[in-house]
Amino acid sequence: ADVKKIAVIAGDGIGPEVIAEAEKVLKKTEEVFGYGFETEHGLFGGIAIDEKGTPLPQETLDLCKKADAVLLGAVGGPKWDNNSKELRPETGLLGIRKALGLFSNIRPAVIFDCLKDASTLKPEVLEGTDLIVVRELTGGIYFGEKLRREGAHGEEAVDTCVYNVQEVERIVRQAFEIARTRRKKLASVDKANVLETSRLWRETVNRIAPDYPDVELEHVLVDNCAMQLLRRPSSFDVIVTENMFGDILSDEAAMLTGSIGMLSSASLGEGAFGLYEPVHGSAPDIAGQGVANPIATILSVALMFRLTFGYHDAAEAIERAVKEVLDAGHRTGDIAVDKSKAIGTTAMGDLIVNAI
Amino acid sequence: ADVKKIAVIAGDGIGPEVIAEAEKVLKKTEEVFGYGFETEHGLFGGIAIDEKGTPLPQETLDLCKKADAVLLGAVGGPKWDNNSKELRPETGLLGIRKALGLFSNIRPAVIFDCLKDASTLKPEVLEGTDLIVVRELTGGIYFGEKLRREGAHGEEAVDTCVYNVQEVERIVRQAFEIARTRRKKLASVDKANVLETSRLWRETVNRIAPDYPDVELEHVLVDNCAMQLLRRPSSFDVIVTENMFGDILSDEAAMLTGSIGMLSSASLGEGAFGLYEPVHGSAPDIAGQGVANPIATILSVALMFRLTFGYHDAAEAIERAVKEVLDAGHRTGDIAVDKSKAIGTTAMGDLIVNAI
Ligand SMILES: CC(C)[C@H](C(=O)O)[C@@H](O)C(=O)O
Ligand SMILES: CC(C)[C@H](C(=O)O)[C@@H](O)C(=O)O
Repeated sequence: ADVKKIAVIAGDGIGPEVIAEAEKVLKKTEEVFGYGFETEHGLFGGIAIDEKGTPLPQETLDLCKKADAVLLGAVGGPKWDNNSKELRPETGLLGIRKALGLFSNIRPAVIFDCLKDASTLKPEVLEGTDLIVVRELTGGIYFGEKLRREGAHGEEAVDTCVYNVQEVERIVRQAFEIARTRRKKLASVDKANVLETSRLWRETVNRIAPDYPDVELEHVLVDNCAMQLLRRPSSFDVIVTENMFGDILSDEAAMLTGSIGMLSSASLGEGAFGLYEPVHGSAPDIAGQGVANPIATILSVALMFRLTFGYHDAAEAIERAVKEVLDAGHRTGDIAVDKSKAIGTTAMGDLIVNAI
Repeated sequence: ADVKKIAVIAGDGIGPEVIAEAEKVLKKTEEVFGYGFETEHGLFGGIAIDEKGTPLPQETLDLCKKADAVLLGAVGGPKWDNNSKELRPETGLLGIRKALGLFSNIRPAVIFDCLKDASTLKPEVLEGTDLIVVRELTGGIYFGEKLRREGAHGEEAVDTCVYNVQEVERIVRQAFEIARTRRKKLASVDKANVLETSRLWRETVNRIAPDYPDVELEHVLVDNCAMQLLRRPSSFDVIVTENMFGDILSDEAAMLTGSIGMLSSASLGEGAFGLYEPVHGSAPDIAGQGVANPIATILSVALMFRLTFGYHDAAEAIERAVKEVLDAGHRTGDIAVDKSKAIGTTAMGDLIVNAI
């Protein structure tokens, strides 16, 4: 049979705990649907710094390159926060994106019916919110030249933001394609009234737009978008933007759903290969206590099935199982109204596995 | 007597309408408190492009330089959106900030009791929210070198973000000073895990912090801040950040109050001189209809009285008058629950003037 290779990177903090539940889900879908998976673990992030002296060891990168997809838990924590740049988990994250050519980060922000009240937004404002932020992931100011120098007014620091037409075009086309499969609305976010890279971005979007006459396009300035996400979240369908704006806006969008422990993300390149991870971080404050919510990581497996493997039946089964367990009232601490009734990570994982 | 010179720049869209009400307030405070003001109008933004061929005519700049303070309505509109860079209202805005040395933008985000329901956030989340965003205004990527060039992958665009220690230090010290007069909490926002300018920013903040032992300091990453503003707005007191992050976060903070038509802002330099303007924009869609909300501009006058002139009695009288009129149930269209009962711009201005 066609055995899919999955590189599994547990990472730091709650990473190993939530990944363990996702692996149980993988095993269960093998049994139920007859798919074959081969998983291999790699060190990455803080733990890789501790054990190998670098956040992204070559062997982990090789493992990912050989794989059909990567499943990532979370990386980072206070232990490594004051390290020099080369010895920081974030540097590994930027490095793996670049090395694997993952130029696109897809972040669905959806409302889970049973969690509507978890949002700080009014339910009537949130009603119907179902959007995707498509973030450019390997260009812009995060990857441009950086330097320190003596200037006329003392020490100064420089970051450089660069985008070329090709980088903009590939991510924008992908966003148009995604919009086509949904409500056919695309909001392109930039700061074209000030930035040159944003003007290149907007020109490119406008040049490409005629190829997608069925998609309704709007240009939104980034500051305005930060407002409109709050004012009319349900009016957005697909949002496409450059790396740093996407970093900020996708986190804002995730938080307004009130379901940050439930959201998955995909980082994609040219082909079917992808890296899948929960939107939430490594949550060092609750690591090792068995209380983390594994749902975002489990749903990342479903996203992997959909986008990389085309296993829509299994993806649907996982998503349905999650819904069933939530509808039955089970909650981890982060999403429980009555915290005293909260269940732990493995209990939640077991319930979902049983429901598949 | 000591007559204060105020340069008045009405600008575009609803600018002239809201400025007219603010001028009535100036006149009334002259009568009531015996202060003397001399106002002179200047062209700026879109209207200056149309009449003088540049968004920031030299005579307007001279007018501002001679003045003790500047009162600005709003600039911009679709008419000028596709102009070349030199002929855009935004270019005038960046130019005036730089030319007047206004390195600090102060944006209070407060909740008006009677408008609590206007926010898309739940009232219990909003409860007690009272924060100020201090945005660096003349540095960073908005002012760095910009260029287009042919690269290895076609045309590319470059923006440069530069900060020197002195630029960071002066804005951060100002923010610490403001925090001292309030709840003594400062959140410094950066992206120090990725950007070199943010690392310089954070080092500078940490170096200065011991001079303000009475202020509690936290460092927040910009993506996390976009989330925390939504999750726990009332926990913030003063937020200080660089130009672009401040642009995005101050708009997000403004929107979450639900009172965007009510918020004023100050742009300050080294001395008492300042430029005051409403947070809202030129709203071209409702311009000329006499329905715009003049309160943000009127409150900008109060802010000018406080920060530039030290006329605390008059400032308080204006703020109290606004509260009184709102408490009596009067609303412009943007903040009216029952739109059919909304009053117009001049009616609102008159009510406030009478209440002073
Ligand atoms: C850790 C950091 C480098 C990273 C980013 O900003 O890209 C993170 O915030 C994310 O969004 O994945
Ligand atoms: C119009 C634009 C240049 C300006 C800015 O981004 O500074 C505006 O958004 C603001 O916040 O005053």
